[in-house]
Amino acid sequence: MCLCLSTRSMASKTPVGFVGLGNMGSPMAKNLLKNGYPVIATDVFPESCKELQDIGAQVVDTPGEVAEKADRILTMLPSSPNVIEVYTGPNGILKKVKKGTLLIDSSTIDPAVSREMAAAAEKMGAVFMDAPVSGGVGAASLAKLTFMVGGVEEEYNAAQELLTCMGANVVYCGPVGTGQAAKICNNMLLAIGMIGTAETMNLGIRLGLDPKLLAKILNMSSGRCWSSDTYNPAPGVMEGVPSANNYQGGFGTTLMAKDLGLAQNTATNTKTPIPLGSLAHQIFRVMCSRGYANKDFSSVFQFLREEEGQ
Amino acid sequence: MCLCLSTRSMASKTPVGFVGLGNMGSPMAKNLLKNGYPVIATDVFPESCKELQDIGAQVVDTPGEVAEKADRILTMLPSSPNVIEVYTGPNGILKKVKKGTLLIDSSTIDPAVSREMAAAAEKMGAVFMDAPVSGGVGAASLAKLTFMVGGVEEEYNAAQELLTCMGANVVYCGPVGTGQAAKICNNMLLAIGMIGTAETMNLGIRLGLDPKLLAKILNMSSGRCWSSDTYNPAPGVMEGVPSANNYQGGFGTTLMAKDLGLAQNTATNTKTPIPLGSLAHQIFRVMCSRGYANKDFSSVFQFLREEEGQ
Amino acid sequence: MCLCLSTRSMASKTPVGFVGLGNMGSPMAKNLLKNGYPVIATDVFPESCKELQDIGAQVVDTPGEVAEKADRILTMLPSSPNVIEVYTGPNGILKKVKKGTLLIDSSTIDPAVSREMAAAAEKMGAVFMDAPVSGGVGAASLAKLTFMVGGVEEEYNAAQELLTCMGANVVYCGPVGTGQAAKICNNMLLAIGMIGTAETMNLGIRLGLDPKLLAKILNMSSGRCWSSDTYNPAPGVMEGVPSANNYQGGFGTTLMAKDLGLAQNTATNTKTPIPLGSLAHQIFRVMCSRGYANKDFSSVFQFLREEEGQ
Amino acid sequence: MCLCLSTRSMASKTPVGFVGLGNMGSPMAKNLLKNGYPVIATDVFPESCKELQDIGAQVVDTPGEVAEKADRILTMLPSSPNVIEVYTGPNGILKKVKKGTLLIDSSTIDPAVSREMAAAAEKMGAVFMDAPVSGGVGAASLAKLTFMVGGVEEEYNAAQELLTCMGANVVYCGPVGTGQAAKICNNMLLAIGMIGTAETMNLGIRLGLDPKLLAKILNMSSGRCWSSDTYNPAPGVMEGVPSANNYQGGFGTTLMAKDLGLAQNTATNTKTPIPLGSLAHQIFRVMCSRGYANKDFSSVFQFLREEEGQ
Repeated sequence: MCLCLSTRSMASKTPVGFVGLGNMGSPMAKNLLKNGYPVIATDVFPESCKELQDIGAQVVDTPGEVAEKADRILTMLPSSPNVIEVYTGPNGILKKVKKGTLLIDSSTIDPAVSREMAAAAEKMGAVFMDAPVSGGVGAASLAKLTFMVGGVEEEYNAAQELLTCMGANVVYCGPVGTGQAAKICNNMLLAIGMIGTAETMNLGIRLGLDPKLLAKILNMSSGRCWSSDTYNPAPGVMEGVPSANNYQGGFGTTLMAKDLGLAQNTATNTKTPIPLGSLAHQIFRVMCSRGYANKDFSSVFQFLREEEGQ
Repeated sequence: MCLCLSTRSMASKTPVGFVGLGNMGSPMAKNLLKNGYPVIATDVFPESCKELQDIGAQVVDTPGEVAEKADRILTMLPSSPNVIEVYTGPNGILKKVKKGTLLIDSSTIDPAVSREMAAAAEKMGAVFMDAPVSGGVGAASLAKLTFMVGGVEEEYNAAQELLTCMGANVVYCGPVGTGQAAKICNNMLLAIGMIGTAETMNLGIRLGLDPKLLAKILNMSSGRCWSSDTYNPAPGVMEGVPSANNYQGGFGTTLMAKDLGLAQNTATNTKTPIPLGSLAHQIFRVMCSRGYANKDFSSVFQFLREEEGQ
Repeated sequence: MCLCLSTRSMASKTPVGFVGLGNMGSPMAKNLLKNGYPVIATDVFPESCKELQDIGAQVVDTPGEVAEKADRILTMLPSSPNVIEVYTGPNGILKKVKKGTLLIDSSTIDPAVSREMAAAAEKMGAVFMDAPVSGGVGAASLAKLTFMVGGVEEEYNAAQELLTCMGANVVYCGPVGTGQAAKICNNMLLAIGMIGTAETMNLGIRLGLDPKLLAKILNMSSGRCWSSDTYNPAPGVMEGVPSANNYQGGFGTTLMAKDLGLAQNTATNTKTPIPLGSLAHQIFRVMCSRGYANKDFSSVFQFLREEEGQ
Repeated sequence: MCLCLSTRSMASKTPVGFVGLGNMGSPMAKNLLKNGYPVIATDVFPESCKELQDIGAQVVDTPGEVAEKADRILTMLPSSPNVIEVYTGPNGILKKVKKGTLLIDSSTIDPAVSREMAAAAEKMGAVFMDAPVSGGVGAASLAKLTFMVGGVEEEYNAAQELLTCMGANVVYCGPVGTGQAAKICNNMLLAIGMIGTAETMNLGIRLGLDPKLLAKILNMSSGRCWSSDTYNPAPGVMEGVPSANNYQGGFGTTLMAKDLGLAQNTATNTKTPIPLGSLAHQIFRVMCSRGYANKDFSSVFQFLREEEGQ
């Protein structure tokens, strides 16, 4: 029904590049393969490429080589410095990128860096979009991620074609950097809601309330939030969430602390007060050095709950 | 279908006492009258009784007189000292209370005071339950309040009979004081969620996101909460909420600050850490002295948003 | 030079009552004995009285008995409920107190409770003053405590006569309750300064500064405070402080958390915003449940410092 | 007594360059002239150079020209981007710098930027040191500034020779960036101490204490800090401080918010928890948008004090 005018998006099933085959990138790249796209991939750790190679991807040595062979490239990297290196480093994508190439970065990074990369790409005649994801490794495997996309609106259809192979929701957010902004905003509010829910469940229990009953009351009232009704941090309230499994799996505290660091930086740079977001950042930071770094972030319930003298 | 064994609850349509005819108490008492209950009422401000008297209530001078004439009594008062005075003061309910009287206090107060009142009532052979409400003046008028009830379980049916005349939801929470605990917990999480939503909407707007789009993204993601999807504090996102009406109406900042004071006190007394709840308390406290006392509590968006140099 | 008109203060060397022979009360009572005052003492734990009895104190069973035998009484108790019990309980001081008795409470409690006790004492014709101390067990032994005294000004000389036997500084603060107010205020600012110093030392060290040099710079600049120049929390900066001794001794985190709870309560009751004081309270509260309850409160440096992944 | 081997420091009274003639830079440059140093100056606002030119400085158009004519250069600029532009911009110092030139930056900026500038300078054969100041415009005029110096130790003597013309204290802190680190640390602790003192004074006054008496008690006790004993924020306690003059003059809230933004960024980057520093940042940030931007930062007392309903 959509008359796609872009030559790139018409040329579907031409190769797609993929840089960054970690816990998230690897299942995402597999979903591209499953959808029939030839994949040209690379990663700084060669062993990460093995599995993908076995199921048909072509593995090359550097991001620059990816750029020589593909005119649509996805990147999925841990943090801002990695993105800067992969795009603008000596073996980076922008050293070899072809004119008109579509670059989609799904890393969660500072929106200011996204804007820098977009400007650098534009100088080379390429187009850069930021498309960070929400949803974890499970959602990545099941192609159920949510992508928040920032960039030039005319290129959005072309990006969407690829992203729908890997996600259930693709949302256009505005100019480049706004995908990151939406991601950072969501995760900041998530962090606040989770700590708030943990404090509230703990206080209620100490005041004599049954945790399941308290959750039920909150969820039918104005205290309701995703952390209370979908991912409750108090053990015994819900099944199938990290709190039912000693806070294993899920979204690690260290990752949440990283995202809150991004929120903090963008808030400082825009002179925006974020009193609760900022305190949430500090709390997850302290948790990281108290042995909670790799537990799910809902373990803040446990962190706050432990009783004195125990 | 329910075989009510309590003589009190069988004796429906016998008089019900009501102490405290303020903004909330007055429409609640009216709903008892509408349901056919004779009402014996009093208030420290005689003029508050006028309207109720005109529609059929019997007005008396003191809570003690109410207790002489009714064996089911509701109280709806501003704060702990008022409750102590109305129950245990020289003209208080407990000075004249009949054995077996059911006392239901819908004030929002410290659960420790509820437990004190229950003990004092028990000495006189009466039963005290706490049943604070959520929902404001509008919900009180429409009999759509939610009651959170704490007290002896055997008396719950008798309480429920009356409370359903005034509310849409009546929830049994456990022993006396747990109604207050549930209310305090809900409002603490509400306060945290509201400030968090305000910070997040403000940050997102400064980072270039459209407020309606940002709310939509949050509401389909893990940042979702009642304050983002039902009562969004950013003007222009929703209709029919205080943020669409310059923060008039709704739930005043000063009332939220009061409830957070209760949360703070119960947390301090139970040695429970509530870092975000405590900071939320401080923020609403500062707002009260900056001209926001009577604005809806979602005006924290405006409080945080104002730009420097303006 | 001072013509003391009070018969009590002229009647020096008449017996002095002492209730509460814990870590602080015991050395204080000894200093009264050393100064030639006969001491009539009691404590809920009879074994606490042994040592004092051996050096000449008369031990009785209840606070009421103390009140029968002495017209000047000091009390040194852990918290508000103990004070209420000792003064107004069934065997309490006020059950047997003689007219004109001077009651001096050195416990650290809520100023509102001090005012209640003063009102109750006045009804019996006695005079109540609050005189909380700063300085720990060491200062108590050496009679180097600081007393902050609240109460009727005309009785201050009589109180001072006794307090100077136990302390180096006795400061008159104003009406009853202001001694507590001064104590609470000092300890709140101390708590803030200590956490602030710990954060600052930790940040500076991570930024490459030598801790001794950083302390020196702070102490010659506007960052200077008691926690940086007299009680530095970073090991290796100073000798003879708890940080030089693995945070043993000193002022326990749990005691600081208690005092901050008092500050929090008085601030809530007076609608006073204390954002940093409140957060300091939460931090020491969390520390109490993380194994720091009995370490000196300067161990917040260690609490914040531990590096991630260790 | 010191045999200076560096040709630069022997060649005293050879010209010194100065970039940035704002409120601070202008009096600093005058003090170099007073000490007999020829000054070659520039500023982006030509009018800023007028006054200095009248008293003998040579004014040139760009930082690059300064670098052609002087082998010792001081820079005093508002923030990191200005420093980057002045050193590495198209007309920047490093475009024309002579080998062996000593570059001293007295701006308060991110230590990471100082290290970048040092690396860039080293590539050109020049030496870069960071030397931020404490003390305001008054101290700058009277040559009473404190300089915190970071950089190669061998060059410290040469830097000290110039800095002692402008300051009373010059402290060597360690490798490049540690001057900034010391400045940031001091100001973070100062901010915490000031807000803490303001909260404490306000709470004490509401509890019935006289402000002068409370300050006296704090200053003889463990609550003592620079903000309580030297720069008390409560009006009526001290003479000659901004609180005695409606918070005019002094150190503006907006400048403190900027320094706390630097502390926040360095803490985030080093994963260091700074709960109180972070909250202090948020408070000064909110104050900036509430009309306090240009008042002295001790006006936080006024911000927190205003009573409800006034």
